[in-house]
Amino acid sequence: MLELNKEIKTPIYQQIYEQFKEQIISNTLKAHERLPATRTLAQDYHISRNSVLNAYQQLESEGFISSKIGSGFYVEELPENNMQNEKDAVILNSENEEKTYRYDFRYGSIEPNFYQTKAFRKALKEALNELEEKTILNDLEPQGLFSFRKQIAEHLREVRGVDCDPKQIVITGGHRYSLNLLAEFFDHKDYDVAIEDPGHRDVRNVFEKASYKIHPIPLDDNGIRIDQIGKLSHTLVCLTPSHQFPMGMILPIARRFELLKWAKENDGYIIEDDYDSELRYRERPIPALYSLDLHERVIYLGSFSKSLSPDLRVSYIVFPAGISLPLQSFHSGTSLLIQMTLSNYLKSGEYRKRINRMRNSLRKKHNMIIDFFHENYQDKIKIYGIGGGSHFVLEIPNKKKDLLKIFHEEDVAVYPISDLYFDRKTGHENMIMIGYSGIPLKQMNEYLDHLKTAIDLLM
Amino acid sequence: MLELNKEIKTPIYQQIYEQFKEQIISNTLKAHERLPATRTLAQDYHISRNSVLNAYQQLESEGFISSKIGSGFYVEELPENNMQNEKDAVILNSENEEKTYRYDFRYGSIEPNFYQTKAFRKALKEALNELEEKTILNDLEPQGLFSFRKQIAEHLREVRGVDCDPKQIVITGGHRYSLNLLAEFFDHKDYDVAIEDPGHRDVRNVFEKASYKIHPIPLDDNGIRIDQIGKLSHTLVCLTPSHQFPMGMILPIARRFELLKWAKENDGYIIEDDYDSELRYRERPIPALYSLDLHERVIYLGSFSKSLSPDLRVSYIVFPAGISLPLQSFHSGTSLLIQMTLSNYLKSGEYRKRINRMRNSLRKKHNMIIDFFHENYQDKIKIYGIGGGSHFVLEIPNKKKDLLKIFHEEDVAVYPISDLYFDRKTGHENMIMIGYSGIPLKQMNEYLDHLKTAIDLLM
Repeated sequence: MLELNKEIKTPIYQQIYEQFKEQIISNTLKAHERLPATRTLAQDYHISRNSVLNAYQQLESEGFISSKIGSGFYVEELPENNMQNEKDAVILNSENEEKTYRYDFRYGSIEPNFYQTKAFRKALKEALNELEEKTILNDLEPQGLFSFRKQIAEHLREVRGVDCDPKQIVITGGHRYSLNLLAEFFDHKDYDVAIEDPGHRDVRNVFEKASYKIHPIPLDDNGIRIDQIGKLSHTLVCLTPSHQFPMGMILPIARRFELLKWAKENDGYIIEDDYDSELRYRERPIPALYSLDLHERVIYLGSFSKSLSPDLRVSYIVFPAGISLPLQSFHSGTSLLIQMTLSNYLKSGEYRKRINRMRNSLRKKHNMIIDFFHENYQDKIKIYGIGGGSHFVLEIPNKKKDLLKIFHEEDVAVYPISDLYFDRKTGHENMIMIGYSGIPLKQMNEYLDHLKTAIDLLM
Repeated sequence: MLELNKEIKTPIYQQIYEQFKEQIISNTLKAHERLPATRTLAQDYHISRNSVLNAYQQLESEGFISSKIGSGFYVEELPENNMQNEKDAVILNSENEEKTYRYDFRYGSIEPNFYQTKAFRKALKEALNELEEKTILNDLEPQGLFSFRKQIAEHLREVRGVDCDPKQIVITGGHRYSLNLLAEFFDHKDYDVAIEDPGHRDVRNVFEKASYKIHPIPLDDNGIRIDQIGKLSHTLVCLTPSHQFPMGMILPIARRFELLKWAKENDGYIIEDDYDSELRYRERPIPALYSLDLHERVIYLGSFSKSLSPDLRVSYIVFPAGISLPLQSFHSGTSLLIQMTLSNYLKSGEYRKRINRMRNSLRKKHNMIIDFFHENYQDKIKIYGIGGGSHFVLEIPNKKKDLLKIFHEEDVAVYPISDLYFDRKTGHENMIMIGYSGIPLKQMNEYLDHLKTAIDLLM
């Protein structure tokens, strides 16, 4: 009935358990059948009774058998057996890699490496020492570590003109999680959502999936068209006012005031995505819309992805002071260790220094690229987004050819913006985005040379 | 017109910018008015023309003024001015603390401290060294770090009988994020959701907020009542089959087979929350429902919150092999550094060792508590959830008194399970949850003594 082998590694109780289990599943042992008494089985196989008891206990816990007091163990009645042979374990060792290109103008990459800095190591070490002192590990505060939120509040006040209390801040596991949380915080039955067109794809994806009605709002040369928002009410307007994504314009102060007025009068909220506002090269960063808002109608989204590293996955939301937050629906989405480290890093003043260094380095790249296009193409290629950020949108005259294919053949990756439009059919095939934050300054010329080879094939 | 002070820290260009801005906002400078020529202003105030140009450029970027070629800078027309005096910055230094109790039987806390271990430090150090070698920092793979998912797949195969490919795994920023992602992955128009009653509160919150219709399914002594599920179709059944939360029963194999059969025949999916299955004290861990599933109907949820630390915020989802994942809708919600560290930690074999040590330590606490109740109260207090996990539910006979208040007066925190029921009115005031994972073994007697004082006042 059983085949027990004392020479193999599998413990005897487990062999008993597995063999009986298999016999029950395969219907060799029928429902209501009595299993051998533990003492008998132990004697028959010259094994300890404990091994038998352990196996029976396991089978009973899982519901294969049940015990009747004074009478022994019986097989349970199982429904139609749908277990066949065990599936083979197929663990693959690599994932199908996306095709990569040598000259990758990917938006969102960053150099130099934040993790190489002494300041980061120091902040991490302090965080570890503090963590080590704990006896008991508890769950995080739902909004995220208070001291971290305090540092963020101080930073925002200094750098973005945003006055807020740490209590208004919620730490999230990245920009997308911030959007998810807002989609959950509001209700699609109460609010619609207006988005920039073109705009960030995640915004549309998240709110659409959460059943919100979406109103795509076109842009003109100054940014989102306020006249198109005016007719809406009970709407969340998702905006990148300091540096429109992807087109790069700054929303003028007049439109900002109009928007705030509209929000106040029409039960609107403005979700201000301030994703790269610190990166301005010709003037100071534009004050946040949040800082102009007196009627608690602006929700501010910030992130460390563009300033420290995209793989950190740390973002935050600043709610208006008047909104009461349902704390039980939050769950800080970032490890305490990372929050403590960034808190220390901000406190040390190193974050501001890093922003300044990045701004200087990005300004050089920004200017090199503009000079390059001016020298080589004068006005033939239009550049959108001059003055800030870490990307441009280029409009390349190209009537006939498969634009992306030509770039890829030259080992150059650029990114079409057509899928940032609400309606992909409208055709913006000649508009491509190039990011430059991840390209080392000393390799910029090499990258641009290859970009030129491809462009020359198109024009 | 301007009051410029060269003695203060604020740069001259900023003083010009701010004073003109204020004058425009307060309507002292009227729309269409011409600003002084840059050269004139510079001469009048004995300042550099560059300072003036910088200030004007900033004002222009923000839309306060515009330039007309050959004619100078003019004030823009702004809508109704809704900016009043700047709000005072109110940065509070502490958050209103929750009341804390000395003898806290909080569920979800953990001791001893994972961060104190050499193995963690080693894994972190290796991760840092690897991170440091990068030149460019890119965004994470949407599903999470491949090598980490590979380690998880191997762990699940060994310990949970779950055969899966790393491609089926998605790393998330915690249990709640896993649920959010599933609510987004499915569609409330296509599926309803069935939940255990009582059960985990987050499950209901997330799916209800995402507009899913919720069917609370009552439990009996063996767990969720399958007969109540049988009548549903196109439904996601959220389950804790290995250790029902909060009541602690193991779903018998017969019900597991019935569930799988139901799911196959009625377009159902089972969301298996395997939150603490590794912690069994009288038998081996119960194999996951996922491991029995041949029809790709089970989605498995795992977490490191109960085994390493609740503040890590690292969970994962294992999808069935046949489901194709919309990668663009994922965004790994956990820092790369943490993912790399845990990947190294799992690879080193230390994770299994830690689980074993925790199991031994928790078994002792588990047994102490059971012995304590047996000795002091025999059958007068019913204990649910014996045999595994890190919490019990107690049923305390108490007809008249405010149960929680009595505990709190003795500086003891216990947790009512009434809000884990779908309908809070049904009244389970005598049922409380006590967690023991965060109580050091050598303090357990002290904790239990205080628990007893409170219970004796009730009975």
